[in-house]
Amino acid sequence: MKSIVTIGGGTGQYTLLSGLKKYPVALTAIVGMADDGGSTGLLRDELGVLPPGDIRQCLVALSEAEAIVRELFNYRFDAGSLKGHNFGNIFLSALEKVAGNFEEAVRVSGMVLATRGAVVPVTTHNARLVCRAGELVIRGEHNITPARIPAGAVFSLEPAVYANPKAVEAIERADCVVIGPGNLYSSVMPNLLVNGIPEAIRRSRATVVYNCNLMNKTGHTDDYSVADYAREIERRVGTGRLDHVIYNSRVPEPELLARYALEGEYPVMAACEGLSCSLIPADLISRKMPAPRAGDPLKRTLIRHDSDALAALIVSNCLGGL
Amino acid sequence: MKSIVTIGGGTGQYTLLSGLKKYPVALTAIVGMADDGGSTGLLRDELGVLPPGDIRQCLVALSEAEAIVRELFNYRFDAGSLKGHNFGNIFLSALEKVAGNFEEAVRVSGMVLATRGAVVPVTTHNARLVCRAGELVIRGEHNITPARIPAGAVFSLEPAVYANPKAVEAIERADCVVIGPGNLYSSVMPNLLVNGIPEAIRRSRATVVYNCNLMNKTGHTDDYSVADYAREIERRVGTGRLDHVIYNSRVPEPELLARYALEGEYPVMAACEGLSCSLIPADLISRKMPAPRAGDPLKRTLIRHDSDALAALIVSNCLGGL
Repeated sequence: MKSIVTIGGGTGQYTLLSGLKKYPVALTAIVGMADDGGSTGLLRDELGVLPPGDIRQCLVALSEAEAIVRELFNYRFDAGSLKGHNFGNIFLSALEKVAGNFEEAVRVSGMVLATRGAVVPVTTHNARLVCRAGELVIRGEHNITPARIPAGAVFSLEPAVYANPKAVEAIERADCVVIGPGNLYSSVMPNLLVNGIPEAIRRSRATVVYNCNLMNKTGHTDDYSVADYAREIERRVGTGRLDHVIYNSRVPEPELLARYALEGEYPVMAACEGLSCSLIPADLISRKMPAPRAGDPLKRTLIRHDSDALAALIVSNCLGGL
Repeated sequence: MKSIVTIGGGTGQYTLLSGLKKYPVALTAIVGMADDGGSTGLLRDELGVLPPGDIRQCLVALSEAEAIVRELFNYRFDAGSLKGHNFGNIFLSALEKVAGNFEEAVRVSGMVLATRGAVVPVTTHNARLVCRAGELVIRGEHNITPARIPAGAVFSLEPAVYANPKAVEAIERADCVVIGPGNLYSSVMPNLLVNGIPEAIRRSRATVVYNCNLMNKTGHTDDYSVADYAREIERRVGTGRLDHVIYNSRVPEPELLARYALEGEYPVMAACEGLSCSLIPADLISRKMPAPRAGDPLKRTLIRHDSDALAALIVSNCLGGL
């Protein structure tokens, strides 16, 4: 069976895995550890509500009973002595006790839920994402995500940490490594800052594909083009190491664009000047409506990737169609 | 795919399902509701420790990651605000909230855990097992199990309850219905006392097999032979409706027999006089050693069915070997 490794986090990786799990491939989702503290809050999406934390999101995305597992992981007891406790937390806590440590808990959680792939933390060490620009220092992903990042800022993990050997092994053995989609500096990049990950990607004989974002993130990637994103990735994995860049070529609906513009967010420019890899433009915007939620009369359509379209492009371009 | 329905409860059904799940068959485990109150305590077995309650036991038996799910379902938080709570209970409670009711929770629990088969409650109504013999009335399975049952006692469910339509449908569509092993009066029979279950077995074109117990239960089935057990089953499902009776023909080790004799328990006599169905004697005793447990220096070997041997006999005799 062909193997695919995904590197990213957040809703982007969730969407990607939801699509890829429908194919007969061996899937490994590499996720950052930093984000799993639970402070990320619930994301409202066309997918419904996702549990906080990349690890829990990937477990849900990869499970066969995705909708039920998502509800279950988000469930918070509202009465009795369990009041206030979230099931997703209870599940991972109990598994950690039974399995002996967190890393093993993540591994066996995939067996318990019989997920369509493995979830592997990028590192088993603790580190914080740090952003430096001249005198300015911003520490911690939760501070960096909403901040305005100056041009020329440098990101690092402090302390420097080494990759989880299981993540390195998965990359080395992969037929295809998929980077993104996801917030460039706060979600995708932290994985590529872990010592050993870029090196494994360079050593691996895998086809490497980068899925570019649909929208620029205010304060982080304003006015970025596809080429700007891809070059940032290549700065970590090595110039020329990207085999394909997949990007969206359809202009979103005007009403949606207007709504995003109010928040200062605009589409990524489909300009690829100077990129030497294969370019794959496609209509990648999801037409799904958000799942209805009690007490929420708004139909909040968002500009999101179509998980099936993304997965189909990856399989046909990087695995020869299976 | 051929379909098998199992009817029983307790360790017997657990063992049976652990064996049958290894075959490419559609499995449905029909379980009593009465037993799932959690008062049954933990059973020490060569399989390790089983969670209380037939439903939870069946979910564990059918899961791909049987050993981990068993540990997880038995895990009890020993500190913090979750102290004293058992994970198996928390899991089913959260699922009941998310799914809307207990029956739906049981159904989707199989999807969440991606079990190799479905668990179906025999009825969705509440009823108690009642034993009457002259003036004597014993109410409730937990009172009947340890009691001495007089000859000629009559068992019933009070109030009379109707079968879960999903259990009836599974039986009607089955290629094979497997009854037992399990305690005759407190575990197997309660299922056959539910209105609609014996009728469904009579209507079904399934091959019906009864797995006779290895040991007689003190106070319940003293001095019973294979024929005595089979006739009790036939009194419910109809004389002549059993196609096969599988029973053990190997004499257990003398030391084991001596230990059981101290408790007044003796092997079921391999006598089948008067039975008109096909008789399948076999060496069915497990050679597995009990799983070691911290702080338990005793190696308590028990006389238990060999799950693989039992499953192989059923598949070869009732499904034509697949």
